[in-house]
Amino acid sequence: MEFGSDNQAGASEKILEIIAEANTGFTHGYGDDHWCNRAVEALETFFGHPLTVFFVATGTAANSLALASLVKPWETVLCHHHAHIYLDESTAPEFFTGGARPIPITRNAGKVTLRHLENYFATLAQEPPHTPACRALSITQANEAGQVYTAEELRQLCSFAHGHGLNVHLDGARFVNALVALRCSAAEISWKAGVDILTLGATKCGGLAAEAVIFFNRDLATDFAQKRKRSGHLISKGRFFGAQFVGWLQDNHWQELATHANTKAAELANALEEFPQITRQWPCQANEIFITMPRQLADTLHQQGASFYEWPSLALPRDVTLDKKTCFVRLVTSFLTTDEHISRFCTIIRNNAC
Amino acid sequence: MEFGSDNQAGASEKILEIIAEANTGFTHGYGDDHWCNRAVEALETFFGHPLTVFFVATGTAANSLALASLVKPWETVLCHHHAHIYLDESTAPEFFTGGARPIPITRNAGKVTLRHLENYFATLAQEPPHTPACRALSITQANEAGQVYTAEELRQLCSFAHGHGLNVHLDGARFVNALVALRCSAAEISWKAGVDILTLGATKCGGLAAEAVIFFNRDLATDFAQKRKRSGHLISKGRFFGAQFVGWLQDNHWQELATHANTKAAELANALEEFPQITRQWPCQANEIFITMPRQLADTLHQQGASFYEWPSLALPRDVTLDKKTCFVRLVTSFLTTDEHISRFCTIIRNNAC
Amino acid sequence: MEFGSDNQAGASEKILEIIAEANTGFTHGYGDDHWCNRAVEALETFFGHPLTVFFVATGTAANSLALASLVKPWETVLCHHHAHIYLDESTAPEFFTGGARPIPITRNAGKVTLRHLENYFATLAQEPPHTPACRALSITQANEAGQVYTAEELRQLCSFAHGHGLNVHLDGARFVNALVALRCSAAEISWKAGVDILTLGATKCGGLAAEAVIFFNRDLATDFAQKRKRSGHLISKGRFFGAQFVGWLQDNHWQELATHANTKAAELANALEEFPQITRQWPCQANEIFITMPRQLADTLHQQGASFYEWPSLALPRDVTLDKKTCFVRLVTSFLTTDEHISRFCTIIRNNAC
Amino acid sequence: MEFGSDNQAGASEKILEIIAEANTGFTHGYGDDHWCNRAVEALETFFGHPLTVFFVATGTAANSLALASLVKPWETVLCHHHAHIYLDESTAPEFFTGGARPIPITRNAGKVTLRHLENYFATLAQEPPHTPACRALSITQANEAGQVYTAEELRQLCSFAHGHGLNVHLDGARFVNALVALRCSAAEISWKAGVDILTLGATKCGGLAAEAVIFFNRDLATDFAQKRKRSGHLISKGRFFGAQFVGWLQDNHWQELATHANTKAAELANALEEFPQITRQWPCQANEIFITMPRQLADTLHQQGASFYEWPSLALPRDVTLDKKTCFVRLVTSFLTTDEHISRFCTIIRNNAC
Repeated sequence: MEFGSDNQAGASEKILEIIAEANTGFTHGYGDDHWCNRAVEALETFFGHPLTVFFVATGTAANSLALASLVKPWETVLCHHHAHIYLDESTAPEFFTGGARPIPITRNAGKVTLRHLENYFATLAQEPPHTPACRALSITQANEAGQVYTAEELRQLCSFAHGHGLNVHLDGARFVNALVALRCSAAEISWKAGVDILTLGATKCGGLAAEAVIFFNRDLATDFAQKRKRSGHLISKGRFFGAQFVGWLQDNHWQELATHANTKAAELANALEEFPQITRQWPCQANEIFITMPRQLADTLHQQGASFYEWPSLALPRDVTLDKKTCFVRLVTSFLTTDEHISRFCTIIRNNAC
Repeated sequence: MEFGSDNQAGASEKILEIIAEANTGFTHGYGDDHWCNRAVEALETFFGHPLTVFFVATGTAANSLALASLVKPWETVLCHHHAHIYLDESTAPEFFTGGARPIPITRNAGKVTLRHLENYFATLAQEPPHTPACRALSITQANEAGQVYTAEELRQLCSFAHGHGLNVHLDGARFVNALVALRCSAAEISWKAGVDILTLGATKCGGLAAEAVIFFNRDLATDFAQKRKRSGHLISKGRFFGAQFVGWLQDNHWQELATHANTKAAELANALEEFPQITRQWPCQANEIFITMPRQLADTLHQQGASFYEWPSLALPRDVTLDKKTCFVRLVTSFLTTDEHISRFCTIIRNNAC
Repeated sequence: MEFGSDNQAGASEKILEIIAEANTGFTHGYGDDHWCNRAVEALETFFGHPLTVFFVATGTAANSLALASLVKPWETVLCHHHAHIYLDESTAPEFFTGGARPIPITRNAGKVTLRHLENYFATLAQEPPHTPACRALSITQANEAGQVYTAEELRQLCSFAHGHGLNVHLDGARFVNALVALRCSAAEISWKAGVDILTLGATKCGGLAAEAVIFFNRDLATDFAQKRKRSGHLISKGRFFGAQFVGWLQDNHWQELATHANTKAAELANALEEFPQITRQWPCQANEIFITMPRQLADTLHQQGASFYEWPSLALPRDVTLDKKTCFVRLVTSFLTTDEHISRFCTIIRNNAC
Repeated sequence: MEFGSDNQAGASEKILEIIAEANTGFTHGYGDDHWCNRAVEALETFFGHPLTVFFVATGTAANSLALASLVKPWETVLCHHHAHIYLDESTAPEFFTGGARPIPITRNAGKVTLRHLENYFATLAQEPPHTPACRALSITQANEAGQVYTAEELRQLCSFAHGHGLNVHLDGARFVNALVALRCSAAEISWKAGVDILTLGATKCGGLAAEAVIFFNRDLATDFAQKRKRSGHLISKGRFFGAQFVGWLQDNHWQELATHANTKAAELANALEEFPQITRQWPCQANEIFITMPRQLADTLHQQGASFYEWPSLALPRDVTLDKKTCFVRLVTSFLTTDEHISRFCTIIRNNAC
């Protein structure tokens, strides 16, 4: 009953095997090796676009380095009110950008919408050098509320952004979960929609520690190698990253893993429909479920071995207020989630309800 | 008809004279001189409290260095949605703090209230090191909407802040305008209310370039001298700052200057009551007036030589929406504002209305 | 004939196996897991001292985060003129410390000596806040010239440092190579000698990507968790680091690997004695050899498949000057170096000399 | 007998008067005023070149902001071993550049020479992104040893720098003292010699607090306005700076002031020739004198009211070593130095010698 986070699972067998394969013998260090080259080629095939790619070990590094390619220290990045870059990565965006400012523009909304952007610009003070200038939009796919942006939604957001002088960063920690949900091509929800930089995470979906910062807009990559090195994110035995991405992309391994996670989430969400004391707050679109439930039930579940996190009420939809007996909870499934996890979880709820 | 900002007036005659007096002969540099010592003594008398004081040339430097004494780079500062530190000082707070995050917690409100703080903490995610920890509250007196916090309001805010582990910074760019409005002692709206650091500005009220960062909580000052030097804000001929503060505090010169500015604001606000096409958005409490007026009228005023700024609609009270024919405007009076400025301004409005 | 760097070898078989073992099933993320706990215990046994330990993926991150625990942004770190932190890690020390300054105090010397420190302090200007204050000493073991500091040398350096208000960082990227060379305990060349923080690298000696920042002086660790997260160095699947260190320390696996590397270096150094056209510049004490050789010979070796790097002449001993026909070269052996690598390398030289 | 620093004198009478003149009435704030415009025009005439100019209050701010226009955070600035930017401005260069590295390339030399640059580049490791790239040269005129670079010397240094991809910053805190010494045009020792950015100080020579950052290479100024605001160096009552530079340049007032200072230095240096116990370490070329003298004599002078600073022995010429009874001293003259200062100083020495 491990619904805490998709990073509580290890790496997939297949990815471990390819790491072992890549480990043999000598290579050049620092990413200048056969495996990294193969990984970049595989990514170019995956996206159908020439790419500039850099690998790092964590999502925080990937996101922050991407933002540092978009804004100067006196500029701002618009984001969702509970974006990972805003709430869960300390002040890493400020650290890597040299002090640029993330500005949340939604509140209690499932997704960033055109309306949020329009409102923001309608009331914005623009008096440089006094006011920081807005220069980037960062969105997450699948997002902080487990929601998936359609290709059309992304196109509209990117188009508005570009029209207002902003470049667009897509935080793709769960990009493949969105991809599986949308049944479209990777291209349609990235460069074709107008995304400039994608941070593509394999870690949450079968990798060990593997994130790729992918520049569709390759001019933005100019200083990236310097920034990565200087922040300690250039690993010496670089083939470790290359191998993971080769394995992840080979034979659509990513798809198999993400499909499993999404399917289990859908099944769990479905099963929870049965319980009137549980309310789902947003549709389950990828591999995350956001629900409210009696606090006493949550306690029971924890006591009986279920793993999941209470979520900040800041993230609740606008019209929902929480009384003290109720709590807001996130459930995440992964490539390792089993039917038994789900059925045991439901059994506890069923027994508790009686 | 100069209502653009109180910094469009020069220094008062008296302050210029004392600068000239202090200029004679040799002194030690870098603030280690007779005039700076006298200024600190005068400030201690003014506040009735032992102080650690540092002088700098700008409000942005004063505020940012004060914040850098309160938060570490992975912490946050709560503030008003249109605080000067948030909207008008570029990303200086981030620069000086090494990347700490200012977080606005009001929206369309005249003042920061206890309710804002309570709401913020009620929904706050607190999972260090993932989430940045909240460590300071910054308020402005008189504030961004021309409003004045009473001693009791400040006490409540400071008490809540201290109870939640935050230290309090007071941006006192117009502190003396508030003081004159409240008819209380400087102590009552600073250390007695719980303020830890005050940035006291003389520049907007008769000084040439003179801001004092005042530590009531002197333990917080440990590294300030290093931070001031390192940011280029330690001037060599330090007596220039000392002399200004000596002159400003001597014989309550500040009071005379601030009283003039406030009085002229009240008179102007009063005079504007006559015009139905002009709506005041907040009470005029110090030396700033916030009004909406027909855009066409604003244009006419500008053409006929009036100086004032349109204000971002972000700062409007919650229930006010602006149509395209209306604009939101700030008027500021200073120690140089004359009756004639006011009467000419009103005459133009009167003539235009016909 | 891979003598380019010890990071051109992959991980040892045994370490890969333990990574696979640790990978099974679910754990908590972010280092809060069984494997990390076991690794810390193993390190405490290894050093015979209670420790505060943090794991990261790269030496640059480990070193820079360690330095950020020692100095404030207006302070300085003394180091060797060709220290890795000074020459090979971009300006990462400045990035992580918020702009503190590394100051090299040797020139053309194999090691940092007491004499270097004494000379530096004898002529130092100390006028804070104008002059940056010296607050840390960083040394490398085994060092940038392949030299090993004895326990006694370390004791003297640390004692001088502490006597002058400096804390001591030891860059232990090749700590175990030094340990094997000295045949002493880990304690003797770390906390017993006075080292405050050690960055212990497994990567260069059989790990995949595993560095431990080890605080003997645990008070210095206060903000480390925040700094690691904020710089993107807290990996989610933390057991990956724990497993590597468990495997590396178990049954003295590190010793076996380091002994092999050092032995091969000694054998290679010995074999090169035969060739008059090759001059060794420092004694071979661990697993690095620094030599000068005819540039034409270096070219031939490269052409015939040998891998090694030319080294900056900055690092040459004081009295050696290089003519254009000669080049300065570093050879590094690793746990994967074979006798055949050495004999083929020597054969090429022998044939070329004829 | 005030020979401590030229910043221990106040402003000249004439400059105070023009500040008072400029102070009357209202102007726009933030440097958008008549006086700043006039100052820029006067500077363009002075240099005979179109300029982009920004004013700030301190030399540290001027130098650091200039360097921040030349290097990225992962690049380096070459400078003199006892450059003001290296020894006397805390770690301000690192703060403003976001962590670029100043690298001193002389040792115990009076000036930076071509030889220093050649040596540095001859042994430089250049392996980006591992090694920080060298991108700027900063020299001081008149320099840290009171020496003046001839136009030809500057040309050679700038030419070498540009040929190696470096832009050139000239720290002109005492530029006019050099100018008077060289009897050439301002153009010849700035843009004509190849200088890209000059920080021109009026403060040490009759100003109150007035430094101009002057871009001859105007493309480098792109982000300067943002950087100045963000570091708190955009003062609101900007005419204060404009007026000082107008007064300083008008009728060659700067020349009168600098000539006085230089003349008094020459007279003092001459007078000191009489005393065998005093040794001048470099020629007196502008308004600074560097001497060694018995420590007992220095103590006597201090006791009898002379003001001057002991200088770090780091700055001594290579072949001079200091015994404990001798001290190294800097004497600085200013526009306020009188004949009586000099004769009293010499009288004390004479009496003491008996």
